[in-house]
Amino acid sequence: MATINSHYLTLASGYLFPEIGRRVAQYREQNPQARIIRLGIGDVTRPLPQVVVDAAKAAFDEMALASSFKGYGPEQGYTFLREAIAVNEYASRGVAITPDEIFVSDGAKCDTGNIQELFDARCRIAITDPVYPVYVDSQVMAGRAGERDQAGRYDQLVYLPALPENGFLPELPAKKIDVVYLCFPNNPTGVVAPLSYLKMWVDFALQNDVIILFDAAYEAFITDQTIPHSIFEIEGAKNCAIEFRSFSKKAGFTGTRCAFTVVPKDLMGRDGEGHEVPIHPLWLRRQTTKFNGVSYPVQRAAEACYTPEGQRQIQETINYYLENARLIRQGLLKCGFSVSGGVNAPYLWFKAPVASSWDYFNHLLHTANVVTTPGAGFGACGEGFMRLSAFGDRADVEEAMERISGIPASG
Amino acid sequence: MATINSHYLTLASGYLFPEIGRRVAQYREQNPQARIIRLGIGDVTRPLPQVVVDAAKAAFDEMALASSFKGYGPEQGYTFLREAIAVNEYASRGVAITPDEIFVSDGAKCDTGNIQELFDARCRIAITDPVYPVYVDSQVMAGRAGERDQAGRYDQLVYLPALPENGFLPELPAKKIDVVYLCFPNNPTGVVAPLSYLKMWVDFALQNDVIILFDAAYEAFITDQTIPHSIFEIEGAKNCAIEFRSFSKKAGFTGTRCAFTVVPKDLMGRDGEGHEVPIHPLWLRRQTTKFNGVSYPVQRAAEACYTPEGQRQIQETINYYLENARLIRQGLLKCGFSVSGGVNAPYLWFKAPVASSWDYFNHLLHTANVVTTPGAGFGACGEGFMRLSAFGDRADVEEAMERISGIPASG
Repeated sequence: MATINSHYLTLASGYLFPEIGRRVAQYREQNPQARIIRLGIGDVTRPLPQVVVDAAKAAFDEMALASSFKGYGPEQGYTFLREAIAVNEYASRGVAITPDEIFVSDGAKCDTGNIQELFDARCRIAITDPVYPVYVDSQVMAGRAGERDQAGRYDQLVYLPALPENGFLPELPAKKIDVVYLCFPNNPTGVVAPLSYLKMWVDFALQNDVIILFDAAYEAFITDQTIPHSIFEIEGAKNCAIEFRSFSKKAGFTGTRCAFTVVPKDLMGRDGEGHEVPIHPLWLRRQTTKFNGVSYPVQRAAEACYTPEGQRQIQETINYYLENARLIRQGLLKCGFSVSGGVNAPYLWFKAPVASSWDYFNHLLHTANVVTTPGAGFGACGEGFMRLSAFGDRADVEEAMERISGIPASG
Repeated sequence: MATINSHYLTLASGYLFPEIGRRVAQYREQNPQARIIRLGIGDVTRPLPQVVVDAAKAAFDEMALASSFKGYGPEQGYTFLREAIAVNEYASRGVAITPDEIFVSDGAKCDTGNIQELFDARCRIAITDPVYPVYVDSQVMAGRAGERDQAGRYDQLVYLPALPENGFLPELPAKKIDVVYLCFPNNPTGVVAPLSYLKMWVDFALQNDVIILFDAAYEAFITDQTIPHSIFEIEGAKNCAIEFRSFSKKAGFTGTRCAFTVVPKDLMGRDGEGHEVPIHPLWLRRQTTKFNGVSYPVQRAAEACYTPEGQRQIQETINYYLENARLIRQGLLKCGFSVSGGVNAPYLWFKAPVASSWDYFNHLLHTANVVTTPGAGFGACGEGFMRLSAFGDRADVEEAMERISGIPASG
């Protein structure tokens, strides 16, 4: 038998969301009458904009005719979509990103999971804590994380605590690092990064030869004009950062699948002898070798997000979720919880009244039939916290908050 | 600057198809009047079956309504599609594969590229030569291939020559190996594997603790009743093989993107201490961590391939390509070339009249304006051979063969 990649065996058991799914399914089986409300997994619920659906359908009609049929597209995405992204996401904010710095993909999860392949096995990786589990697990699988301790921490990763004490904005690392994952608006804390905070990171990265992997999957929820949507709004970032974006939460594409990653041509790594090596051709090579592009009709659907009607419908949906977030925040504050997020972000993060977040997950599931996400699933510093997501149906959000306010705070 | 994965620097320059694209674009620029016919990249040209398009459009209509909207689906694919695959691809041929052994993905290229992540960095990998470049390049990127020599061979890979002398069916390796990639109907040689040949490999794998990665992306082109479509038609294969399938060539999905991989629950690897470890949960973990499932409307489109009308339309298209293959084969034989493939397969492989296949690629491009694929792009044993693909338009195929028969055999 072939020897397996033993790093898989050091993964913490069960990826967070499948584990939640299993617990909910078990509860549902034992309580088939319970009307469960999900404020857990961050999945959208509002339909796709009609203009997006129409574009996809028209593209499928093209696929039905030999004269307009599309086979393999460019692995990095069609020019029409990359140009639309460059104009609407970057030029519109005064950021010069060229279409060939943009790589269209089927998900930010894939891209944030795969990007680590470009780096040496000995690179020192920093992550915030709590954090989106994919950053950690993909490093574990690649063997860069080392051994896991009882608290679930890996001895070769550098953890940057995000706690109430620092307003959930981690301090710069004291140790030498090579790569850092940052996510703003943050999943799971819902915190956004002011320009000065991102500038601190970019300056640090430039001075210390660090590459920032910037996950901006939730930028569409920023309403505060002073908050950057992109790391590339910070001077110098094109020399030290890669940015991940997605249509998932912005335009309801979690089931439709489209995202993109920006790798600036100015971004350099170094080879084993210390010579500069541009990162862009490495990612291009990775994608041309292991990826075959996003479904053509899906790319047409994504392009339609940038039509005036698409923009209007998307904004309407974003506003709907932001109003949900406001209601959840208000409800949690009324219950006396300490809350972050829910403003400029679809996530809310609050301190559980008991020590174990999985215990409180069970308590809320059993007494209020509300599914949350236990903070411990996002890292050791997430223990004792809960994440709620604002992506639900309005009536469900209202009922969930009523139920939570009506139960004993702890079990 | 972060140190990069230096294995990328040992990759041969340019993935084959982008390199062809560059040469054709250059020729076209210098000869804007030339009517170029592409028999090179194996991309389909016939439209999607109408029933498939209708299913995708209906699914997009579901996405436009809150009541039927679909967010994240299961990473391993929707049950409706996995059940349809189990019944139509396997049960129909007497093979018992359960839906939860099937992982729906966005491409066999992705899956054959990513599967190596499950294995130890020191596993000894065997590939046939010539071979689909993704198998090699993904191993190079992972650092399992070692150093590249002048002929383009890596010193840690085990090459199994496919040559006229063995009917392009490589012999078993003499060295100890852990994993072997096999592809039948073969890309690029167009050769199919009789049951006895696959049985020889399965028996060898079982006796020598080898895992077979079986790429059956072209099985739909098999018309000979005695040729297996699946490695799992061989007894014991569920204990030693993973199979890759795709809707790309079968149903015209190269631009729509859907494929699947079968990882039997009985398949075992071993950990560093020699204990058995099932492979299925490792791939499940890989996919749940780094993949977010295939677009829902695309999965509905794939499901529609199994309707009676879908099957009929798909068969019609397959027959169209097989007739192309017959015409190409006949044309090449008439020119006096030595030809394999083109029967039970969409690819034809013929001996070039000059030593260098890139030279002959240029010759055919410049004199006949026909794009082929140089055999050298598939490995050292491919040098001196050319691949033609039968996926073109009938009139183009006929004209290409006329042009080739009308030019001097070599430049």
